[in-house]
Amino acid sequence: MTIFRQRRELMRELGFGSKSYQNAVRFFNKDGTVNVKRTGLGFWENVDIYHWLIAVPRWKLFSFIIVGYITVNFLFAGLYFCIGPENFGGIDQSGAFNQFINLFFFSSQTITTLGYGHVYPKSNAAGVATAIESLLGLLSFAITTGVLFGRFSRPKADLLYSKNILIAPYQEITGLMFRVTNKKQYELIESEVSVAMTMKNPETNTRDFLNLNLEISKINYLALCWTIVHPIDESSPLYQLSLKDLEERDMEILILIKAINDTISQSVYSRFSYKAGDFVMDAKFKPLPQEATRNGKLKVAVNEIHLFDLLKKV
Amino acid sequence: MTIFRQRRELMRELGFGSKSYQNAVRFFNKDGTVNVKRTGLGFWENVDIYHWLIAVPRWKLFSFIIVGYITVNFLFAGLYFCIGPENFGGIDQSGAFNQFINLFFFSSQTITTLGYGHVYPKSNAAGVATAIESLLGLLSFAITTGVLFGRFSRPKADLLYSKNILIAPYQEITGLMFRVTNKKQYELIESEVSVAMTMKNPETNTRDFLNLNLEISKINYLALCWTIVHPIDESSPLYQLSLKDLEERDMEILILIKAINDTISQSVYSRFSYKAGDFVMDAKFKPLPQEATRNGKLKVAVNEIHLFDLLKKV
Amino acid sequence: MTIFRQRRELMRELGFGSKSYQNAVRFFNKDGTVNVKRTGLGFWENVDIYHWLIAVPRWKLFSFIIVGYITVNFLFAGLYFCIGPENFGGIDQSGAFNQFINLFFFSSQTITTLGYGHVYPKSNAAGVATAIESLLGLLSFAITTGVLFGRFSRPKADLLYSKNILIAPYQEITGLMFRVTNKKQYELIESEVSVAMTMKNPETNTRDFLNLNLEISKINYLALCWTIVHPIDESSPLYQLSLKDLEERDMEILILIKAINDTISQSVYSRFSYKAGDFVMDAKFKPLPQEATRNGKLKVAVNEIHLFDLLKKV
Amino acid sequence: MTIFRQRRELMRELGFGSKSYQNAVRFFNKDGTVNVKRTGLGFWENVDIYHWLIAVPRWKLFSFIIVGYITVNFLFAGLYFCIGPENFGGIDQSGAFNQFINLFFFSSQTITTLGYGHVYPKSNAAGVATAIESLLGLLSFAITTGVLFGRFSRPKADLLYSKNILIAPYQEITGLMFRVTNKKQYELIESEVSVAMTMKNPETNTRDFLNLNLEISKINYLALCWTIVHPIDESSPLYQLSLKDLEERDMEILILIKAINDTISQSVYSRFSYKAGDFVMDAKFKPLPQEATRNGKLKVAVNEIHLFDLLKKV
Repeated sequence: MTIFRQRRELMRELGFGSKSYQNAVRFFNKDGTVNVKRTGLGFWENVDIYHWLIAVPRWKLFSFIIVGYITVNFLFAGLYFCIGPENFGGIDQSGAFNQFINLFFFSSQTITTLGYGHVYPKSNAAGVATAIESLLGLLSFAITTGVLFGRFSRPKADLLYSKNILIAPYQEITGLMFRVTNKKQYELIESEVSVAMTMKNPETNTRDFLNLNLEISKINYLALCWTIVHPIDESSPLYQLSLKDLEERDMEILILIKAINDTISQSVYSRFSYKAGDFVMDAKFKPLPQEATRNGKLKVAVNEIHLFDLLKKV
Repeated sequence: MTIFRQRRELMRELGFGSKSYQNAVRFFNKDGTVNVKRTGLGFWENVDIYHWLIAVPRWKLFSFIIVGYITVNFLFAGLYFCIGPENFGGIDQSGAFNQFINLFFFSSQTITTLGYGHVYPKSNAAGVATAIESLLGLLSFAITTGVLFGRFSRPKADLLYSKNILIAPYQEITGLMFRVTNKKQYELIESEVSVAMTMKNPETNTRDFLNLNLEISKINYLALCWTIVHPIDESSPLYQLSLKDLEERDMEILILIKAINDTISQSVYSRFSYKAGDFVMDAKFKPLPQEATRNGKLKVAVNEIHLFDLLKKV
Repeated sequence: MTIFRQRRELMRELGFGSKSYQNAVRFFNKDGTVNVKRTGLGFWENVDIYHWLIAVPRWKLFSFIIVGYITVNFLFAGLYFCIGPENFGGIDQSGAFNQFINLFFFSSQTITTLGYGHVYPKSNAAGVATAIESLLGLLSFAITTGVLFGRFSRPKADLLYSKNILIAPYQEITGLMFRVTNKKQYELIESEVSVAMTMKNPETNTRDFLNLNLEISKINYLALCWTIVHPIDESSPLYQLSLKDLEERDMEILILIKAINDTISQSVYSRFSYKAGDFVMDAKFKPLPQEATRNGKLKVAVNEIHLFDLLKKV
Repeated sequence: MTIFRQRRELMRELGFGSKSYQNAVRFFNKDGTVNVKRTGLGFWENVDIYHWLIAVPRWKLFSFIIVGYITVNFLFAGLYFCIGPENFGGIDQSGAFNQFINLFFFSSQTITTLGYGHVYPKSNAAGVATAIESLLGLLSFAITTGVLFGRFSRPKADLLYSKNILIAPYQEITGLMFRVTNKKQYELIESEVSVAMTMKNPETNTRDFLNLNLEISKINYLALCWTIVHPIDESSPLYQLSLKDLEERDMEILILIKAINDTISQSVYSRFSYKAGDFVMDAKFKPLPQEATRNGKLKVAVNEIHLFDLLKKV
């Protein structure tokens, strides 16, 4: 049958096999990333250190830098201590501990290329070690510059999705609706959305992956708020399914939005996912309140994107 | 009716709802950005500091850097003063003010990793503080490098639009016309334009958003000057509207041009908007004067892009 | 004949002429790059130093930096020695060798802008030489920063391809199949594949280049594992060819995959090639084992992508 | 007439008006850039300094850096001299000239953040001036880093075009042909070409701009050598024109090639132009010699791309 073939094709187009059903495993995380752990590869084969560094939370990166800075200085202080504190001019020679501390500070002045010079290398071994440390400092600093630039220049979209996804009468039929808005001050243009769905197939006990048709899938601006609508007509895989069906079949919705970030002229991507529990039946989103500010701007309360009204059953 | 349906779809495609009409609020700024203020979000949720830093005017950025430099040095001078000036060798110890000034300069020599060394940390507390300041200096410098690079490598188009948008007989019908040229010495290739319009719908008191058809919407080069024409035929929303109608309906035109900047091989975007007051009826643009320079170049006076002739009414 | 015309066109579309057959020369390397050496150009015309620096293995780059650092310091130490060690204050003046070593370390402290200052330039010639070396140091460091950033921010896909390419009954016909998965922790979206083939034409003794049709050539996610299938129907150039034919005709398959790296929002490309010896007849890939981890993730053993079962001949 | 309309449309699509004919002015430079000088704008409106810095020849950039370095040091030496050499410790105080030279070197040690410290600021005025110079040094260095990175990471294609463009019998009709190859060691994939033409219209004395149809306009790889063919059939604007006609009409051909640079995964553009004098009638390109190297590579002599054979007139 045509419908069946089409579904199979759609399923394949999502890049998952059909045998992937695992009870109690959410397929997509809330942020739309795939909830998969790859095994059977070495650490370095699996992890790309640059991608880790630019995606890791800020506090982790700075902790990493500070701990690294202390550790490297500690190691070089140790090396200088092994070379012998007497090879360094200007050092407080009163006791090993003091010497070590002095060498620790000397190391920090070397790796940052600060080089006050009140402490300085006297012997050849000390000269070689400081020449190495200062080069290492420059290279680390070059890498840090690159990572920090990579982080904040990284193209990203910061979108706010409505907490719930609603099913309600829409024009003559029924529609599946959610809303999305841009949280940031920069503008997004040429936005495109694609919505996919996964649910357990009760007949085959496999997980099916399907694309959902959308009323409008591309807009020129993401200026105020965009309501994305999937019409639940006969060709929709959601046709005549109840909330209970969705629960039982472990329904997950995955959203992928692509747009152009106007400030940096680059493509950005945003993903999000809804689970069966996020569905609300017979509800309509409240219009987003808009008013003029005193200096002639249109004020939009984006945090009210989540609000909806339950419709009275007829 | 088909036309109506099509208009609704176009409206949606611009990413605005239809309920967004606010009297006396201009929707697009002159530079084509959306005149919207997003509320209901925390400051950090709304503002992306990197995007601010690369889009802010140059003098603001440099003021920000200089004020930051002075402030940080002031804070570290204070910290060093609290630690005690006697912990620093080579300092002019005559009076607290002199000491503070000396420590301020010492701080500037530390944060820039200059490190003359005529002043230097003697105690452990001083050693720790300077080790921190030099690291902070390097990190700030890494960020500054990234921001400056992000600013000047930011893909952008610097286009000049004619001050007015003209309505005049065009071939057998009437056309809406404006001109655009590239102000910079670098070249733009594969240029595409889309033109949208918003006006108040007098029947529903909502603001409608519509795309305008263009005679040519893509050209290979933006070498000299591009006259963009919207034919005002029966399918045009401007059909049979007078200048007075446009005024009353708060007409706004929004232009989005995408091109490839040939020097950096990247997509660039330019936006612009016209209001009802920028329209001129029955006028034609003057041809742009072109002549050969002595060394065999074609000279084009781009600043004459705004000039037009009023047509005599027949 | 239509088929023939179509084949010629496809051939041309790959950018090779038809006269390029050379026995015993593999056309594509295992990693999908073209096995071509361009001659008749000067070194600088052929080599782009930046592209070399960002594509060279890591250990080569770091060897290059270290050797360069030592060489430049050696040269400047020589220059300083020629200028005369007596022009530098703070130098150990006991013998030429000691002086040279001292100047070598001084050079390293100058090029890194460390500048302890226990050695310093006294004469004008020494002042000029150190001013040059410190500028050179900054410029080299600027270039190093750029190269390191260019290296690790370089958009790339790290895909794992199945070792073999299988021919097996597929639905009602026969299919050519291979599998591919993403090795890294970052995600790839909007993946597209194109598969080309080259083999010797026994009639004309030329090398033909043809594109192969694929069942599905675009998927939304490359989440788990993607099995790419070329149906060997009557329109396929592989129709009714045996393994022996493929061997004799020096068959090579070239795969080009394009995807979006989700972390950096950029297009990435991966290439791979199979030779006739990589073909296995009448075999099917084993399903990739998937299980839930304790913290609710779907665990996939990607290294089992190569496994297949031989089908019993009927 | 349809043909005429189509030509007008094509003409417009190139972004030139039709009134732009100037005798003796070449429209495109040999490298395919437009031979236009924009006037009527201020210098800063027309010139983008970053685009200038990344496109300027290497020796100009380095001259610019060196002259800037000397000038800034000269200015700061002057400032320090005005402040008074007695405000700086460690300076050779024997005569104004010696003092100035000493301050010049001190400035270079400050702006590079080298800071030996054998010369150091003693007074507050000296402290302020050095604090400013070291900040200026860091900012200049940040900008230099960005410019150098922008230069060498700039996506570019380095293609070699055949010196001549040939007209010869091609299949059953006549074709216009030229060849192009990649000079660099990196690979270009997904190459696309578009060819435009401009010539004087003898009837209207205007310059017409037209696109030329191509037999194949997109190839997967630019591995060896690509022969681009425009069939001169009845729909071609070159149909039945002689070499003399082309000369008289100031014929210019403009080529734009877009490809993906595989090493950096970015789009690159190349342009080139031919004039009437570059045409050769009744000639065919020689096949590019290919042979296997000892280590099993296919060797291609790219510099023989220009060679062709004249065909005997029948």
